[in-house]
Amino acid sequence: MKLRRLAIIGVGLIGGSLARALRQAGMVDEVVGCGRGRANLEKAVELGVIDRFSHEVGEAVAGADMIFVAVPLGAMRETFAAMRGHLAEDAIITDGGSAKASVVADARAAFGELPANFVPGHPIAGTEQNGVEASFPELYHNRRVILTPLCGTNPAATAKVDVMWRACGADVNYMTVEHHDEVLAATSHLPHMLAFGLVDALARMKENDEIFRYAAGGFRDFTRIASSNPVMWRDICVANRDALSRMLATFAEEMKELAETIGKGDGGHLLEIFQRAKQARDRYVDGLPEAAE
Amino acid sequence: MKLRRLAIIGVGLIGGSLARALRQAGMVDEVVGCGRGRANLEKAVELGVIDRFSHEVGEAVAGADMIFVAVPLGAMRETFAAMRGHLAEDAIITDGGSAKASVVADARAAFGELPANFVPGHPIAGTEQNGVEASFPELYHNRRVILTPLCGTNPAATAKVDVMWRACGADVNYMTVEHHDEVLAATSHLPHMLAFGLVDALARMKENDEIFRYAAGGFRDFTRIASSNPVMWRDICVANRDALSRMLATFAEEMKELAETIGKGDGGHLLEIFQRAKQARDRYVDGLPEAAE
Repeated sequence: MKLRRLAIIGVGLIGGSLARALRQAGMVDEVVGCGRGRANLEKAVELGVIDRFSHEVGEAVAGADMIFVAVPLGAMRETFAAMRGHLAEDAIITDGGSAKASVVADARAAFGELPANFVPGHPIAGTEQNGVEASFPELYHNRRVILTPLCGTNPAATAKVDVMWRACGADVNYMTVEHHDEVLAATSHLPHMLAFGLVDALARMKENDEIFRYAAGGFRDFTRIASSNPVMWRDICVANRDALSRMLATFAEEMKELAETIGKGDGGHLLEIFQRAKQARDRYVDGLPEAAE
Repeated sequence: MKLRRLAIIGVGLIGGSLARALRQAGMVDEVVGCGRGRANLEKAVELGVIDRFSHEVGEAVAGADMIFVAVPLGAMRETFAAMRGHLAEDAIITDGGSAKASVVADARAAFGELPANFVPGHPIAGTEQNGVEASFPELYHNRRVILTPLCGTNPAATAKVDVMWRACGADVNYMTVEHHDEVLAATSHLPHMLAFGLVDALARMKENDEIFRYAAGGFRDFTRIASSNPVMWRDICVANRDALSRMLATFAEEMKELAETIGKGDGGHLLEIFQRAKQARDRYVDGLPEAAE
């Protein structure tokens, strides 16, 4: 399989790394970039990530057989709407959004019905760095990419997106839209809320500079994700608000109970929780790949 | 200043590293170790961390002019009690416990009154590795050590403990016992509760192995502290239960409110929280030393 023309809408770390990986694999003839910032797009051309660019989505997707949408979740709907009437007959659309129900709803709203050639996807890879200069062809090596095709999705389109990601070294997995959003709420969105929430709570304390001064190395690791892009995370929260708010409320209730257990000094119960957590982490998490940074 | 005889009660990462650092600085003539496990103590002699050892606290402290207590918080009281009647006249006692009110209460209970030569302390340094083999002389380089002397503490004893830690390369700071426990609850104990609690919550979910499989690098960093020693953390929670349960309950309430904000899709409010958190982290935390691992 070789792509004739790949359109990347949103040329940053995620979109730029896909283009670089496909070029390195010899999987694409031409890459067209699309975005708002001229300087970033010119840099992308200079770096050889894209061949040319347009600021207009309609112009960028014209003649493309593969379109990768890597814009913030809050900009998905308008991006899809701008494609209408400009798509080639064989054009396949996929995306990199961190929540899938909202992207599917946006595509449905923008196109009137869900296009059969739209394959919702989510590469689980580093997100703390931004911009095309941070992109690199190995970003997706041994990373998981989750595809969430729907009943009406064209299986041939799904297969083509699958091949594309495998060519980047990724491990492609399938889930329903709802299950994806639950799993990501648990493993990514909830931890980000706790890290943002904790740093914010400490920042609002009196003498907050003193408090941060005594934080040790563990705090640095724990709160690293609180340095992520606030706009992106606002969009993710709004997009995945049902699964995330439910899960965060449940967790808050559990933390309230843990506070009571600590207040009572119930060491036996505390030890049970900590041992179960340590076992789970040592068993499941130590095998994960290192952060992309 | 040179120590005649340093007694280390609990020869692990913390106690072993202090002994190594003081030896390297030429600050100590003799080091006596004390602990339960013969193999660990023999290893400590073999590594040159200690000169000799005893399993009896009373025997180990005899003739020592400096005693460093690095046992779990749950073993502090019995350790202090075992010193009674065995201390040299000029003996200074200090400790490495992560909560200070409980250690002060334990010392008071064990000795009948708080000894004037007891200087409560807390080196803020790596705690995820255990055992004397993990100890190294540079552990305290540029790390903060908090001393919390009380009104009745002998200033000469405090000064000697201060000099000892500075000789290890540490940055010595002073706080009241209560303030120490508040600051540590915020920067260390609370994050540990969230990490233990999150991993435990995920481990209790259906299909938990699948959930962990999709966790990305950020999750690995965020939950690293959930691999800490469960017994040590049970002891810390029980020891600092007042400050910690209060702080965790407040945080749980805030997370409940955040869940509601997310449920309503209030993007403006979310953005404000995330921006404030990112600013605080970028400003305060990026300057911290790396984790000791």
